[in-house]
Amino acid sequence: VGTGPGALNQITPAAQVAIAQADVVIGYTLYVDLVHPLLRPGQIVEATPITQERQRAQRAIALAQWGLTVAVVSSGDCGIYGMAGLVLEELRVTGWDGKTPEVQVFPGISALQSGASRVGAPLMHDFCAISLSDLLTPWEMIEKRLHAAAQADFVTALYNPKSQSRTTQIAIAQQIFLQYRDPKTPVAIVRAAYRQDEHIVLTTLADCLDAPIDMLTTVIIGNQSTRLHGDWMITPRGYLGFGS
Amino acid sequence: VGTGPGALNQITPAAQVAIAQADVVIGYTLYVDLVHPLLRPGQIVEATPITQERQRAQRAIALAQWGLTVAVVSSGDCGIYGMAGLVLEELRVTGWDGKTPEVQVFPGISALQSGASRVGAPLMHDFCAISLSDLLTPWEMIEKRLHAAAQADFVTALYNPKSQSRTTQIAIAQQIFLQYRDPKTPVAIVRAAYRQDEHIVLTTLADCLDAPIDMLTTVIIGNQSTRLHGDWMITPRGYLGFGS
Repeated sequence: VGTGPGALNQITPAAQVAIAQADVVIGYTLYVDLVHPLLRPGQIVEATPITQERQRAQRAIALAQWGLTVAVVSSGDCGIYGMAGLVLEELRVTGWDGKTPEVQVFPGISALQSGASRVGAPLMHDFCAISLSDLLTPWEMIEKRLHAAAQADFVTALYNPKSQSRTTQIAIAQQIFLQYRDPKTPVAIVRAAYRQDEHIVLTTLADCLDAPIDMLTTVIIGNQSTRLHGDWMITPRGYLGFGS
Repeated sequence: VGTGPGALNQITPAAQVAIAQADVVIGYTLYVDLVHPLLRPGQIVEATPITQERQRAQRAIALAQWGLTVAVVSSGDCGIYGMAGLVLEELRVTGWDGKTPEVQVFPGISALQSGASRVGAPLMHDFCAISLSDLLTPWEMIEKRLHAAAQADFVTALYNPKSQSRTTQIAIAQQIFLQYRDPKTPVAIVRAAYRQDEHIVLTTLADCLDAPIDMLTTVIIGNQSTRLHGDWMITPRGYLGFGS
């Protein structure tokens, strides 16, 4: 179940009902806390540390195999770098028949969308999402994608741009983009959109490393036509006429 | 206001409130019809033909300048190939100060997400969205992006893959992807997700042109690790171990 950026009024009614009607709600502590107002007395609630995604998926499957309805909550869209894939992947390796336990995926507002909506409309033309985490993906593949995205003028949303132990990737990404795109290209740095601690910086490709960036931040790099207008970041919907 | 795939329970509560509380609701006829249960007596409702996006944005701005609260409804996420960018772009060219009229963007579930959620979890790794419409974008730029996406192994969602007058682009896109990706790469073809006339085909890159495709269809092409498992399309979250 995708729970969006964290505000209750950004969670679809379908996702809210799925959480409220489940026998068990499982998720990373922070995200379980965010949906707390949706929980009912009597539900089993299991909040687990952030690193244990695989164990969480396996636990959900075990409980579902006992006949319980399990809501695995996942921030943003559970289908975008989220828990939906992990649950399905774990089911697949256990020889699941695709039917029992029954699976339903509830999409949610992903970080690139919540971030974009708070700064205007940067995603109005072709875009891509790239995670800078090299935990499960070789760094060479990530670099290849950064070059492809920069060269082909995609608006680009960077997920997991930086962590306490992983600080150089965002600087490399910036350097790659600077090879193809103007240093003045608008960049939005959005953290905790729609939450009380929301923090937004509108900056440029040249200056984007001056802003605070961590694992909960999404970095949105405009394409060659993206412009800042006051506090708004706007990508025109085409290249012909209009906006250039 | 992004109204998602069309089912009311896939529209965020924030977007629902924005529509219900507006003085005026403006949008393409089909999308206004979909949010009909949210409308209140006394609201001004203006449903306009699909091609008149710019006029619709200008009309919304004119009404907002009279002091009315205007909800411009846009299917999917209004910030992804939607009306949010058009409204902001039109405001920008009229010398808007960024403040009056006040603008708020309400994100919604985009077609790539609603489609993905109905077939499993194809977007679990880096992905991109490319519109095949060359109405406002030179075809050379679209081809360049198709090559970049295919070569760098992005999961790729194609928007506007085909219309009555524009039928060759999807075949060219298929040929470009076949240069870099296995003919057996899973492809999902999703039309009208979450609506009564939902139609889904799971197929392969080699066979994807056999399925019915039109303007309301989203085509999702897997990456080199994406697999079909029964009726599910699953992209592993990494390249190391797991799922290959």
